[in-house]
Amino acid sequence: MTDLTLYSMPSSGNSYKIRLLLSLLGRDYTHVACEMQSAETASARAAGHLPLGKPPALHLPDGTILSESNAILWYLAHGTGWVPDDLLTQSQMLAWMFFEQNRHEPVIAVRASLNSYPHLAEQATPARMEKLLADGHALLQIMEDALTGREWFTGTAPTLADIALYAYTHTAESRGGFDMARFPNIAAWCGRVAALPGYRGLFDHG
Amino acid sequence: MTDLTLYSMPSSGNSYKIRLLLSLLGRDYTHVACEMQSAETASARAAGHLPLGKPPALHLPDGTILSESNAILWYLAHGTGWVPDDLLTQSQMLAWMFFEQNRHEPVIAVRASLNSYPHLAEQATPARMEKLLADGHALLQIMEDALTGREWFTGTAPTLADIALYAYTHTAESRGGFDMARFPNIAAWCGRVAALPGYRGLFDHG
Ligand SMILES: N[C@@H](CCC(=O)N[C@@H](CS)C(=O)NCC(=O)O)C(=O)O
Ligand SMILES: N[C@@H](CCC(=O)N[C@@H](CS)C(=O)NCC(=O)O)C(=O)O
Repeated sequence: MTDLTLYSMPSSGNSYKIRLLLSLLGRDYTHVACEMQSAETASARAAGHLPLGKPPALHLPDGTILSESNAILWYLAHGTGWVPDDLLTQSQMLAWMFFEQNRHEPVIAVRASLNSYPHLAEQATPARMEKLLADGHALLQIMEDALTGREWFTGTAPTLADIALYAYTHTAESRGGFDMARFPNIAAWCGRVAALPGYRGLFDHG
Repeated sequence: MTDLTLYSMPSSGNSYKIRLLLSLLGRDYTHVACEMQSAETASARAAGHLPLGKPPALHLPDGTILSESNAILWYLAHGTGWVPDDLLTQSQMLAWMFFEQNRHEPVIAVRASLNSYPHLAEQATPARMEKLLADGHALLQIMEDALTGREWFTGTAPTLADIALYAYTHTAESRGGFDMARFPNIAAWCGRVAALPGYRGLFDHG
């Protein structure tokens, strides 16, 4: 028994964020895998274990359930150094995390999903895939520019913004078909994330 | 001269959130209107006043620019009572704000935009509008259920979660065509928001 139980989807970036942070923090937890369209996910949903209908969800020892990947990061990172202390840097970190959920994920992750999950293939029309490609390159350019002269999204130290953005960015080429050769700052930053002590990959479920 | 300058889009909910909070706080600011597809917006973007490409953006006295509506709310609300002190309630507030950006806004606000802005009319195909309607009703049902037995999204006092969710919810019927008669808890909650001292409406630009 550990104190935390995480319901997460093994192949998904939103869920991976939490597994990555827990690994960087060296924190133990019980994992319940909820793969896309699986019986486990359907029964977790029916049992009320996924209050907003989707993984990830973190179950605390007292039974409280916390949803939304970036809010779970916020909860887990408290007092660890992954959240900047000063209000402005903290707000800038949150800005990147809202950008990630509102603008990045609906393009970068969605194109990867349409490429990766057979049951979504019929939605992957050429016109849609082309628009997602162009929109994604524009979003990646915003990130590329933001990394000019800086190592991490909110300055000199990694924060939750880096974890949130890394989740779907590091597979943007392999899963989403985006042309990452255009974005050398992003490539270097991905390398820095992967070199952090305690790092684990998307498919490291050991 | 006031200390804050807000670039915001008069007809948009993401921008309205900030104007609503500033009004609830009784705080003065200079407003630069950036309507959709206007010359003002194009020139603000070209001048670097909208670093992530879209309004809203808050310019601080020292020249720092903060983007993303919900991150701007976080910055402005510090120390005001609109952010709960304890970590769990704070995390639950952020969960609703990420839900708003990742799941609510891309459905509720997008359907309203497709209805409201003439240049988007050709994207409003019947199949797309019907799917947005069904998805929106499912999201509104999550909100309706969450408000069972509680007045505000994170408990007994209003927080930034209520402001963020209110922005596009209160016009979901008039602009988006959603059937709000199904959601009496949401209707009562909208009434409570509109009764807050200092409240201003979406189109109150006085
Ligand atoms: N905004 C939510 C999104 C959650 C989400 O997209 N969940 C994925 C798995 S990580 C999912 O359930 N996908 C399957 C589906 O959309 O039905 C978060 O960040 O936690
Ligand atoms: N996630 C951003 C979204 C910003 C956004 O959607 N801006 C709207 C106006 S409030 C906009 O620029 N719409 C025009 C467009 O998409 O080109 C936020 O919450 O600030």
